[in-house]
Amino acid sequence: MGRLKTAHGAVETPLFMPIATRAAVKSLTPEDLKNLGTQIVLSNTYHLFKSPGLEIIKRAGGLHKFMNWSGPILTDSGGYQIFSLARNRKIGSQGVDFFSEVDGKHFLLSPEMAIQIQKNLKSDIMMVLDECVGWPCGKKQAETAVKRTSVWAEHCRMAYDKFFADSRDSLLFGIVQGSIYSDLRRRSAKEIIRIGFDGYALGGLMLGEPLKKTYQIIRVVERELDKNKPRYLMGAGKPEQIIQAVKLGIDMFDCVIPTRNARHGLIYINSKFDQSALLRLPRVKLRGEYQNLKQKFYKEIHITNAKYKKDFRPLDKNCSCYACKNFSRAYLRHLFKTNEALGQRLATIHNLAFYLGLMKYVRTAIKQGKF
Amino acid sequence: MGRLKTAHGAVETPLFMPIATRAAVKSLTPEDLKNLGTQIVLSNTYHLFKSPGLEIIKRAGGLHKFMNWSGPILTDSGGYQIFSLARNRKIGSQGVDFFSEVDGKHFLLSPEMAIQIQKNLKSDIMMVLDECVGWPCGKKQAETAVKRTSVWAEHCRMAYDKFFADSRDSLLFGIVQGSIYSDLRRRSAKEIIRIGFDGYALGGLMLGEPLKKTYQIIRVVERELDKNKPRYLMGAGKPEQIIQAVKLGIDMFDCVIPTRNARHGLIYINSKFDQSALLRLPRVKLRGEYQNLKQKFYKEIHITNAKYKKDFRPLDKNCSCYACKNFSRAYLRHLFKTNEALGQRLATIHNLAFYLGLMKYVRTAIKQGKF
Repeated sequence: MGRLKTAHGAVETPLFMPIATRAAVKSLTPEDLKNLGTQIVLSNTYHLFKSPGLEIIKRAGGLHKFMNWSGPILTDSGGYQIFSLARNRKIGSQGVDFFSEVDGKHFLLSPEMAIQIQKNLKSDIMMVLDECVGWPCGKKQAETAVKRTSVWAEHCRMAYDKFFADSRDSLLFGIVQGSIYSDLRRRSAKEIIRIGFDGYALGGLMLGEPLKKTYQIIRVVERELDKNKPRYLMGAGKPEQIIQAVKLGIDMFDCVIPTRNARHGLIYINSKFDQSALLRLPRVKLRGEYQNLKQKFYKEIHITNAKYKKDFRPLDKNCSCYACKNFSRAYLRHLFKTNEALGQRLATIHNLAFYLGLMKYVRTAIKQGKF
Repeated sequence: MGRLKTAHGAVETPLFMPIATRAAVKSLTPEDLKNLGTQIVLSNTYHLFKSPGLEIIKRAGGLHKFMNWSGPILTDSGGYQIFSLARNRKIGSQGVDFFSEVDGKHFLLSPEMAIQIQKNLKSDIMMVLDECVGWPCGKKQAETAVKRTSVWAEHCRMAYDKFFADSRDSLLFGIVQGSIYSDLRRRSAKEIIRIGFDGYALGGLMLGEPLKKTYQIIRVVERELDKNKPRYLMGAGKPEQIIQAVKLGIDMFDCVIPTRNARHGLIYINSKFDQSALLRLPRVKLRGEYQNLKQKFYKEIHITNAKYKKDFRPLDKNCSCYACKNFSRAYLRHLFKTNEALGQRLATIHNLAFYLGLMKYVRTAIKQGKF
C-alpha cells in the first residue's frame, strides 16, 4: 500500500479514479462521490476544452471550484482524445495540431501548452503530452511515437519547472509508450525516468491487445521504474485486470467501465470480495503458459433482464451503498425500463461502490501481507 | 393553514405535491425529496399500470416500499391518463374500457377497480374515478360527464366502504367536474358532497381555459364545500396561479411544471419570496374587471442562455438548496449544454425548493394573518 500527497489531500494506493469527463461523474454530485469514499477523480482536458472551454474554468478559479469537488483531480493532457476524436489532427515535433470545433480554427497543443492548460485547471496530477499509438501498431510507428513522447516529455518537464518554479502545487506524471514491443517499452521507460517525474504512467495499453501482452509489458516496464513513485495504468480496466495489474505493481487505475456499464444497466455484484476467491486468481507469469485470466470473483447482471421483474432483493446483499440499502432489483429494473434517470444514477452509485470497495479490499489485503 | 392526517404522517396545507409519475420524481431519490422538505408526492396509477404493472407493486408491499418513500402518497384513479393517452378508450356507465399495451387486451377500469388498485398501491390519498372533459367542452357533454362522475363517485364510495370496513388507512377524495359552467359545477359539488369524502378536488380545470374562468369556477365550487375538508386543485399550476388559488381557499396542488421545466433548463428564481410582492398580487374578484393576474413575484431564467456562460453566481442567491449552495450558473449551463444528467437533477432540486419554499412561505403568512 502506498500514499501519495497532493495539493488537495493525500490518497492511498492502489486506487481507482472515477471519470469526470466533463467536470462531472455522470449523474453524480460531489456529495455522492464523497459518500462513496472516492479519493480522486479524473477529468479530460480535451472535453473541457470543447465545453465549457478552458477560459471559463480558469475564471471559475480552477476545476475544483467549477465542479465543487474538494478532493484531488488528475487531468490528462488532452492528447489522447485529440488522437482518437479530433478531426484533421496532425502530429509534428511541436505538438498536435487539430481543428477546433469551438472556434472553427486550428489549435496547436504543444507540450508547453498542455502544462499551461492543466495549470489553469489547477490539476493536482498533470499528465505530460504523449503520442499514444493505437493497437495494432507496427514497430516503426511505435518507435517514432516513443521518440516523440520522450522529446515532448522533456518539454513538458521544462515547462513545469518554469511554471512551478515557486511552488509545486501540482504533480507531473510521465508516460511510457512503446506499444507491445518490450525493447521499445524498456527504452521509453529509461528515457522518461531519466527526465524524472512524480509518477509514471503506462500509456498505449488496454487498447484491445491480448491481455497476455498487456501483463508482459507491465512487467517489463515495472522493472525499470522507481519503486518509490506511483505507477498508473491508464484506462484500466475490468476488476480482474485491475487485480492482476496490482499484483504486477500498479498503483493507480481509471476506467469508464463501472460508470458507463451502469448507465447501460450492467451491474457488478458480489461486493463481499471473498478473499479466497481473489487470492485464487492465477499469478501472472512472464514466461510459460498464462492461465485463464478471465476467472472472475464477481458477477455481472443485466438489470433489465425479465428475471429481475419480481426480484425484491437488493442489487447486492453484501453491498452497503445507497442503492443497495434502499431499493430492490425490481425497482431498478423498472427505472431502467421506463428510462427514469434515477436508474442510471443508482446503478452508477452501486458500480462505483463495487470498484472503490474492491480497491479498499486490496489495500487491506496488502496491509495484511496477503497479496 | 390546515393539517391533514394520513397513514404516513400528517401534512400541513397549503401544500404542493411533486409528481412521481412512475414511482420516482424524475432524477431524485427519496433522500433528495426529504432534504427538500417534501411532505407528500403524487403518483400516477395509469403509468404504474403500464410499467412496472400493478401486480409487481402489490408484491413489493405497496408503492411506498417499492419506491422507498416513507411519506404520504396521493394517487390518481388512472382515469385522466386513460382519457388523454390510451388508445381505443370507450366510456360507459360501468367505467372506462381501454386497450392495454401491457397485455394487448382490453381492460375495464370501473369505479370499484380504481379503488381496489389504489388500495393495492397502499395509497394514502386515493382519488375517485371521474370523467374529466377537455377544454373547450360543450355544455351537453359537460353535463353528461357530471352525471357519470356522480354515479362513479357513489360506486367508488361504496367500494371504499367495503374494502376499508375495518380500517381507514387511506383517505378518499371526491372530484367535482362541470367544465366552465357555474351551474354544472354547483350541481356537481352538491352531488359529490352529498356522497361525502375526506377531501374534495376540482378536476377539469387548468386545461387551457381562461384563468378568469378558472378562478370564477374555484370561487363557485369553494362556496359549496365543507370548510373543514381539504380542497385540491388538480394539475395547478404556475406560482402566481397557486397563490391566487390559495386566496380562493385551495389547500392542495400538484403540477409537473417545476420538474418538467427544470429538465428543460427553465429555472425559477427569487426564492426570497418578498412578502410585499406577494401581497401586491391583485385580489381575485368574482365580479368586475380582473386585474392582470400574470403579475409575478419571481423570474424564470433559461440556464442555457449564453449570458450565463461566465456567471459564477448561484442560480438564486436567496435559495439554500443543494444546487444553489454548491454550484454556479456557469456550471449548470455547462451541464445542460453537454447533456450531463446532473444538470437536470440539480435544476429539479432547485425548482422544487422554489415551489416548496413558496408553499412554506404561504403557510407562514397565513399563520401570521397576512394572507
